[in-house]
Amino acid sequence: METKKVLLNEDEIPRQWYNILADIKMNPPMGPDGPVTPDMLAPVFPMNLIEQEVSPERWIDIPEEILRVLSIWRPSPLVRAYALEKALDTPARIYYKYEGVSPPGSHKPNTAVAQAYYNKEFGIKRLTTETGAGQWGSALAFACSQFGLECKVFMVRISFDQKPYRKTMMATWGAKCVASPSTETKAGQGILEQNPDTPGSLGIAISEAIEAAVTDESGKTRYSLGSVLNHVMLHQTVIGLEAKKQMEKIGEYPDVIIGCAGGGSNFAGLAFPFVYDKFNGKEIAIHPVEPTACPTMTKAPFVYDHGDTVKMTPLLPMHSLGHTFVPPPMHAGGLRYHGMAPTVSQLVVEGILEPKAYGQLDTYEAGMLVARSEGFISAPETNHALACVVDVARKCKEEGKEKVILFNFSGHGLIDLGAYEQFLAGNLTDYEFPAKEIEEAEKVFANHPKPAIIKSR
Amino acid sequence: METKKVLLNEDEIPRQWYNILADIKMNPPMGPDGPVTPDMLAPVFPMNLIEQEVSPERWIDIPEEILRVLSIWRPSPLVRAYALEKALDTPARIYYKYEGVSPPGSHKPNTAVAQAYYNKEFGIKRLTTETGAGQWGSALAFACSQFGLECKVFMVRISFDQKPYRKTMMATWGAKCVASPSTETKAGQGILEQNPDTPGSLGIAISEAIEAAVTDESGKTRYSLGSVLNHVMLHQTVIGLEAKKQMEKIGEYPDVIIGCAGGGSNFAGLAFPFVYDKFNGKEIAIHPVEPTACPTMTKAPFVYDHGDTVKMTPLLPMHSLGHTFVPPPMHAGGLRYHGMAPTVSQLVVEGILEPKAYGQLDTYEAGMLVARSEGFISAPETNHALACVVDVARKCKEEGKEKVILFNFSGHGLIDLGAYEQFLAGNLTDYEFPAKEIEEAEKVFANHPKPAIIKSR
Repeated sequence: METKKVLLNEDEIPRQWYNILADIKMNPPMGPDGPVTPDMLAPVFPMNLIEQEVSPERWIDIPEEILRVLSIWRPSPLVRAYALEKALDTPARIYYKYEGVSPPGSHKPNTAVAQAYYNKEFGIKRLTTETGAGQWGSALAFACSQFGLECKVFMVRISFDQKPYRKTMMATWGAKCVASPSTETKAGQGILEQNPDTPGSLGIAISEAIEAAVTDESGKTRYSLGSVLNHVMLHQTVIGLEAKKQMEKIGEYPDVIIGCAGGGSNFAGLAFPFVYDKFNGKEIAIHPVEPTACPTMTKAPFVYDHGDTVKMTPLLPMHSLGHTFVPPPMHAGGLRYHGMAPTVSQLVVEGILEPKAYGQLDTYEAGMLVARSEGFISAPETNHALACVVDVARKCKEEGKEKVILFNFSGHGLIDLGAYEQFLAGNLTDYEFPAKEIEEAEKVFANHPKPAIIKSR
Repeated sequence: METKKVLLNEDEIPRQWYNILADIKMNPPMGPDGPVTPDMLAPVFPMNLIEQEVSPERWIDIPEEILRVLSIWRPSPLVRAYALEKALDTPARIYYKYEGVSPPGSHKPNTAVAQAYYNKEFGIKRLTTETGAGQWGSALAFACSQFGLECKVFMVRISFDQKPYRKTMMATWGAKCVASPSTETKAGQGILEQNPDTPGSLGIAISEAIEAAVTDESGKTRYSLGSVLNHVMLHQTVIGLEAKKQMEKIGEYPDVIIGCAGGGSNFAGLAFPFVYDKFNGKEIAIHPVEPTACPTMTKAPFVYDHGDTVKMTPLLPMHSLGHTFVPPPMHAGGLRYHGMAPTVSQLVVEGILEPKAYGQLDTYEAGMLVARSEGFISAPETNHALACVVDVARKCKEEGKEKVILFNFSGHGLIDLGAYEQFLAGNLTDYEFPAKEIEEAEKVFANHPKPAIIKSR
């Protein structure tokens, strides 16, 4: 019988993360008076994580306590998608890393566990964060329960309403979750005054979570971010490092790598260890995939912009639709972010990555195809990766090419079935390209410094 | 680092099921004119499954096509519950089979896949079934999508209302799901006339599903049952057979085996291969666990009773609260069944199994403890097993005994978070022991034949 899953044992979980900062040159984050220094971030993050954020070391050891918790579900399986290949009648060989096996059901705990650990080590008692679709908030709630930390989550209003189970999931792990914008922060109050009916956005929720952290007078609260930052990408590289071992076991190597990208973390987690190979001469097409409704990499400029809506974060060098951009209320909440990880953005600028964008309906059609062939029901975010996989696999058929496609099945969709219900009922639509919003944003960017166009090699 | 999970490769999935009928003697199912013969079941089930239902062979080969689909998620991990042991400060070593890794999130597809395969082999085009909490209906929907069969599910009204995502999950896999009692069958119409507000029951839903199968004039529709029957228990034994291999790998053997039991299938799946060992001299305490609100094994008599409410099934020798018993609307929908698998019942009668019952609140407390230690959020049904595990592990502490406990983590609770929300809000209650209903049922049983009290050895 053909083997479907390539498994690793617990002692094969990578013992080091791969840090892409060792291999690319970046524009620095900017404050009002020039480049941001590590100690300026100290009210927001613990110093041990700030050190990781700026570390130039290529390989960073994973502490034993983190490995212990990751081993609840890691290594995750690498799966050969025989049934999908058959459904598409493609000569391509399709593989996926299935990250849905974690307790909250996505890749997010890979960094949540690490961040909770380092905060605990630093003496922190309580973490605040934002969440879009709820995957990240759930992951941090789970991680905090493992290390005995308190956890407070600001959840984007539209997802809070669409996905009531997420709040309960966080509460089951002991965390508190409120809809954002909330009345609990000045940032939230200000936005509610202007627009009481706002569906919210990740940018707004980030502002609230940072405010809640830095205004806690005990000094024992810090903020935790589930994507975008360098140390988050770093922690996610266990995905790609495992995938490399697994593909090696069966004598395969990917020609094409695909992951959905909102802030960039699941994509980077799978792709960066292969980007390292690409730097060293391997030929791989690497596609981060985003929604046409929130097209940072494919349509927005590479600029200095704030990571949040009320400008609490430094200016980051990234593709951005503008920090005030509120994406349409599509169901892939994790992809409703105005910016993109600076590392991912830099690799797009350098031409190492080839971003793709798909409309909402294409992504659900791909999700349905996968559910009825491979069996697993995927998260709306993951469906963006699937739309690209289907696209590439069909091109392989047209061109008669036996490419090896590797993608990140970043999470299951069992908490997102409300979206599938809407799709099955014919109630979902595509959204128009936000050309006017991008034009508006350009005016804001005009006042920001300009990032240099760097070629790392 | 301590190893948490014991994994098997795909080629270690058992190649044969264990059939307990080879090792116990049973009362036969009874029709109006005496014991039921295989051909009397032909309108309901395909003949290849009927043959399995009555087979005396101890080992039955698993067809390659079934193994292919099982390999989407099997072998399931055996996990050492270090964190739970620590939380309970117990000298016991606790292990669980984690069946939540399947696409629908429970053990149910182990038999759904087999049944869909055998029906397809027999030329059947469409399956009907009932579902309680939705785990079984989802599993059959998934299995039918794998083999290209149509699927129609009658879902107990109370769960249909509590768990709207279940219906969408089934629809995503292409199945149709209606609330039971429905107006689509005579059985459903009759019950709705008498009691329009009934929360429904598994017994009623079974009646509807059987009626929908046997009244289809094309002859291409059959009924599929997710528990109770011998062939269902048979298909589930992959769980226990894998667990045996996994425990052997680490040099362990269980002193105590625990599984929740509604119709009996996840319990039997884990326990029967060890019951075989018990027959051959091993000392093991084996506990099927049920709710105090629906206490078949611990309180109800061993009788001949119908498997469904409107008496479409033969009389089965089992512990029963009466085929008209409608259990209280507790959240563990999969345990709201008036009867118990005849094989499990027979083993209770013989004293091989020691059933336990727990109240709803105890089960959620155990579920919360496990979520915050082991990480995975468990299904309300599974929480009954957990309550017993906690109980036994605490006794081990009191008595200073290093017992090895093995339990079946039959499914995750991510679609059941509504129940957790009610628990966290303090809105759940225990239910009173249904003494009066049992008394009523005894009058019905008086007219039924009496099963013999058999000692198999």
